[in-house]
Amino acid sequence: MTVSSLLESAVQDAVLESLPRDIGHILAEQIRSSSVLDEVAADAQAYADRDPACGHDARNIVVAITSFQAVLHYRVAHWVLGLPETHPEIASARDALLFALMITSRGKLLSHSDIHPKAVIGSSFVIDHGIGNVIGETCQIGDNVYCNGGVIFGSSRIFGNQTNKRHPTIGDNVQFGGMVGVYGNITIGSDSFIGARCTVTRDVSPSSKVVLISEQQVTRPYELEA
Amino acid sequence: MTVSSLLESAVQDAVLESLPRDIGHILAEQIRSSSVLDEVAADAQAYADRDPACGHDARNIVVAITSFQAVLHYRVAHWVLGLPETHPEIASARDALLFALMITSRGKLLSHSDIHPKAVIGSSFVIDHGIGNVIGETCQIGDNVYCNGGVIFGSSRIFGNQTNKRHPTIGDNVQFGGMVGVYGNITIGSDSFIGARCTVTRDVSPSSKVVLISEQQVTRPYELEA
Amino acid sequence: MTVSSLLESAVQDAVLESLPRDIGHILAEQIRSSSVLDEVAADAQAYADRDPACGHDARNIVVAITSFQAVLHYRVAHWVLGLPETHPEIASARDALLFALMITSRGKLLSHSDIHPKAVIGSSFVIDHGIGNVIGETCQIGDNVYCNGGVIFGSSRIFGNQTNKRHPTIGDNVQFGGMVGVYGNITIGSDSFIGARCTVTRDVSPSSKVVLISEQQVTRPYELEA
Repeated sequence: MTVSSLLESAVQDAVLESLPRDIGHILAEQIRSSSVLDEVAADAQAYADRDPACGHDARNIVVAITSFQAVLHYRVAHWVLGLPETHPEIASARDALLFALMITSRGKLLSHSDIHPKAVIGSSFVIDHGIGNVIGETCQIGDNVYCNGGVIFGSSRIFGNQTNKRHPTIGDNVQFGGMVGVYGNITIGSDSFIGARCTVTRDVSPSSKVVLISEQQVTRPYELEA
Repeated sequence: MTVSSLLESAVQDAVLESLPRDIGHILAEQIRSSSVLDEVAADAQAYADRDPACGHDARNIVVAITSFQAVLHYRVAHWVLGLPETHPEIASARDALLFALMITSRGKLLSHSDIHPKAVIGSSFVIDHGIGNVIGETCQIGDNVYCNGGVIFGSSRIFGNQTNKRHPTIGDNVQFGGMVGVYGNITIGSDSFIGARCTVTRDVSPSSKVVLISEQQVTRPYELEA
Repeated sequence: MTVSSLLESAVQDAVLESLPRDIGHILAEQIRSSSVLDEVAADAQAYADRDPACGHDARNIVVAITSFQAVLHYRVAHWVLGLPETHPEIASARDALLFALMITSRGKLLSHSDIHPKAVIGSSFVIDHGIGNVIGETCQIGDNVYCNGGVIFGSSRIFGNQTNKRHPTIGDNVQFGGMVGVYGNITIGSDSFIGARCTVTRDVSPSSKVVLISEQQVTRPYELEA
């Protein structure tokens, strides 16, 4: 199978396997003529370009790289959220949110990444490894952003969260190392590099490099403790 | 379906899909008259109250929020551990542990959280996101505790672990930010707030706030390295 | 069932459930006379020896401990990579990589650990909990290594990665606490202990103990913020 037919099949599976049968069949047909197919094709190409561990082969990405399923299911779930105004099959925004969350839930099971369907994410988005990544409801993310595993775009409050803009805004061409946490309604400027395991709670200007300085104490030789 | 019928169905699925057929059918019937249904109803309500990203809708929680499955499967697995004394169907505590771990394993697959069935957890417990959360065997956790994703209640030793009390005790109404690690047989006092990514290895008195101070070096502009 | 028959069944499932039917049946038969069965038996015994939370019972490990599936699927996927030279059923190294990644993908879904099939891992390898663990393509790991959950052996670059040796080399008998990150083509000497949450980017000599010193600010009592 070609990469584009694998993608079309994966997008339809995301709908059919997540939703009740009747609405699933309607949407699986409609999504074939939506913008989602072009979006996931651009995402898959970005994965193939950037990940040497897959032999730079988009077929491997679509068939066997679980973190790609996170992005694919996000594209589908986000598309479902926009349907109520024109689609009589979805009775209300409340139903659309439930259907979107059901697709998100399947994507999370397949990928171990949790991307809220209301987040806004630009083109050619890559999540590598993808275990524990979280992208909150009010995130806005630019084009060509790369996240290693465990990257969290969260809110700075825990509970008592409001429904206002409480998650980060990310520019274009930003790279995030593994386990980075970005919390609150802050902005990470375009073309920045955020090193592994940084916790960022203030704005970062464009073209910045942020690196964690941690302290470690090394005692050698290591004697086993009683 | 009502939320309570969705919950009853989910609790029975946890038994039927995890265990051998014969014991599964017996326990799926018995659990309907157990305290587990009230426990998971209180948990689901706590989720709906605290998570704005789900529209504060308990139906969404039960159907589509994977981290709720971690708590639900814990409630079921913990209940199974208590059965051997009165249930001739379970021949021994060794079998009960295996059955409980099989339920735990399904809950972990569905949620990406690892809660040992022997842990003791109070009412209205919430895990948000839930990827990578670990709750060790000898933890004791109070009521109304909230954990964001990746929170670990572990032991301070690695291997060579003993079977004594080696995991934390958590009071009531404690909130844990994402990726917090609490290690060893220590106590976190009630009404405390532990900020994201803190590593806690000593007792924390009640009503404390613990925040991580990390150092980061920002170099701008970011020049690509050779 | 005995532990060894459970293991044989699990190894065959890893092949049959991951691969196309025809190649799956051929390899599921061949793997029964391969070294993989001895390898996973040694791994399972190491788990049973080291994990008190499972009652030191290898049956529990194979049936109900999801992180063991990460190691088992790695053993199978790594074996598949070595087949092309002698197996006419696998037409090319490109196919072997795809088949190996498909097995890796299933192992990741079942365990939440991401182990590249090209990594080289010694005997009696244990991953505990296993949510978010990553072992990169060019890692070399000795015998009797123990990793708690979330341990990452990654590269120090993000994208723009080359295909050369860019991941760590780990000696024998090394223990890693939860959430440790080891980045780049560095060496961790044998018999070392790397404490929870350390980030290691330089060589560590044998028999070292590395511990993270983090700073935390505690304010008590905790007043709720406006």
